[in-house]
Amino acid sequence: MVKSIEWVDGKVIMLDQSKLPFEVTYITCTDYLMVAEGIRKLRIRGAPAIGIAAAMGIALAAQDIHARNSAQFMKAIEPVFHEMLSTRPTAVNISWAVERLKKVIKSKRDESVSGLKQILIREAQSILDEDIAVNKAIGRWGAEFIKDGDTILTHCNAGSLATGGYGTATAPMLVARDQGKKIQVIADETRPVLQGARLTAWELMQENIPVTLITDSTAGSLLRRGEIDLVIVGTDRTARNGDVANKIGTYPLSVLSRENKVPFYVAAPFSSIDFSTASGDRIPIEERSPEEVTHILGIYPIAPKGVKARNIAFDVTPHKYVTAIITEKGAFKPTDIRKLSRQNVDLDSIRLKR
Amino acid sequence: MVKSIEWVDGKVIMLDQSKLPFEVTYITCTDYLMVAEGIRKLRIRGAPAIGIAAAMGIALAAQDIHARNSAQFMKAIEPVFHEMLSTRPTAVNISWAVERLKKVIKSKRDESVSGLKQILIREAQSILDEDIAVNKAIGRWGAEFIKDGDTILTHCNAGSLATGGYGTATAPMLVARDQGKKIQVIADETRPVLQGARLTAWELMQENIPVTLITDSTAGSLLRRGEIDLVIVGTDRTARNGDVANKIGTYPLSVLSRENKVPFYVAAPFSSIDFSTASGDRIPIEERSPEEVTHILGIYPIAPKGVKARNIAFDVTPHKYVTAIITEKGAFKPTDIRKLSRQNVDLDSIRLKR
Repeated sequence: MVKSIEWVDGKVIMLDQSKLPFEVTYITCTDYLMVAEGIRKLRIRGAPAIGIAAAMGIALAAQDIHARNSAQFMKAIEPVFHEMLSTRPTAVNISWAVERLKKVIKSKRDESVSGLKQILIREAQSILDEDIAVNKAIGRWGAEFIKDGDTILTHCNAGSLATGGYGTATAPMLVARDQGKKIQVIADETRPVLQGARLTAWELMQENIPVTLITDSTAGSLLRRGEIDLVIVGTDRTARNGDVANKIGTYPLSVLSRENKVPFYVAAPFSSIDFSTASGDRIPIEERSPEEVTHILGIYPIAPKGVKARNIAFDVTPHKYVTAIITEKGAFKPTDIRKLSRQNVDLDSIRLKR
Repeated sequence: MVKSIEWVDGKVIMLDQSKLPFEVTYITCTDYLMVAEGIRKLRIRGAPAIGIAAAMGIALAAQDIHARNSAQFMKAIEPVFHEMLSTRPTAVNISWAVERLKKVIKSKRDESVSGLKQILIREAQSILDEDIAVNKAIGRWGAEFIKDGDTILTHCNAGSLATGGYGTATAPMLVARDQGKKIQVIADETRPVLQGARLTAWELMQENIPVTLITDSTAGSLLRRGEIDLVIVGTDRTARNGDVANKIGTYPLSVLSRENKVPFYVAAPFSSIDFSTASGDRIPIEERSPEEVTHILGIYPIAPKGVKARNIAFDVTPHKYVTAIITEKGAFKPTDIRKLSRQNVDLDSIRLKR
């Protein structure tokens, strides 16, 4: 399994994704500032992965703290929380990880300093382990929709690299492969930042899953020709009504899939469902620097100097185009997502079966 | 008007499109081999444009021929025909231009050698003038569908650069602009070869038409948000039933346009309608080198070494997604295209009006 980050012998080993796929370099972080720099410089990216990295960075910082008691320890670790929060201020998973670690040490005021240090390592490791467990569960539910011989289309990177391991959209592929099903994957390159070409293609090659790279606008032809059996993409946020926000280009794929009667699945960890947002139209959509469009990989110009460009980073896929949303609790019709917020919901009664 | 090629004082002036948009260089071709090299090395591209270039190359070659009579002249010019045909063997417009020039000198056997030389210059110039006239007519019919303030989406390059001038998909934009309508254009970058980013954006900037560059998969979001009033694209071939083949990415745009109730127009010179092909599924679709996908501009790698890639160069848009096909004879519903092959068809009765 491709590992984006690991805790090994008191150090954090991070795969430098900013150099992929041209160089495979692992960085051994011996202090938390190296971890923070890795997050800031996008050496590690993907919502779950950077949450794990922040937690591991805090655990790493803890080991170097000299304190006589838990009160001193908590005071000493406070700047580390701030440093981690400052790396990518809008990343929900980082603030979630920081809060979780804060809470655990606050609940252990009577613990010795060395005890607290161990607790933080265990907690960071738990965050990683839980993420992998969630993804494997998504994989098991999702693999039910994959038949032997299927060709799966995916967009962007919702793979091992974006998570602690297994990925979200890739998890059903890995589980299906482990179940002995022969599959192949078509990966959209995903302009402008090319996560499909650089990351998804690379990680599926590491997993020995046959992968073919296409430009984003080639997917429509393959769908029309009947060369795609199903589509699986990830999501950044799912609204209460089952609308999903994901990398730009997801919405066109969903429309083309429905038009050609190809099932369109969204892999979404339960934590990415935002029950407080009524519909996708309420999800704020980030517009990023035009240079990502006018320059490839931030370096190579492809357009006239001074041309105006627009770089809408995400799009919203209305729930009517989504066949099912696959979570660690099961696969559900998008219109059933709202029911998941209820106490004592009978999951079995609403789970979608193949 | 952006001019891709011109006959000036006994020489052929060619804009070197292979260097656009980074350098604007005009090549002065003083002999026909320079014209042939320009076609071969894609300094000039686009079906109508290379037909014009071939004709001008032949006219240029004619000027250097020393012959005592028309029979000697025709023998001496024969290798020039072969050279032009060999530049891009599958280009229909080149063989069409060569045949047309051959025919004209064959019909003038009694002409003096210097007379034949003048006739060839006039014929090459006519091919250019007729192309511009066709495009302007497409522009006039197409501009009827453009309102003041409209935002127009286009794909690839079916502009002045691909033709003698005015372009096909761009002609309605230029005419609307000339009519005093304020318009703006959204140009898809058009991976893999980036004709939209490199050529369409550049030529619209030369025309002072406001243009915004987007990645191909951003068009869906703009259509859904209601930010596009109409789509105009070119075509390589239109089948008898109104299906159109065009650059990969056209079909997805057509589906997304219909889904969002945005009219989708195809600008097609009458010569590109293939009445002998019953439907789009009969049009052969070229697959090109995977390197165009894995390397940007043929140089910069964006994917893992050894990754498999597929490069389908064109797609077919079924006629049901096409609002109208705009030719120099008028705009027609795609299902009326078959009627255009009839003798004495009453065009007025089937022309589509806004």
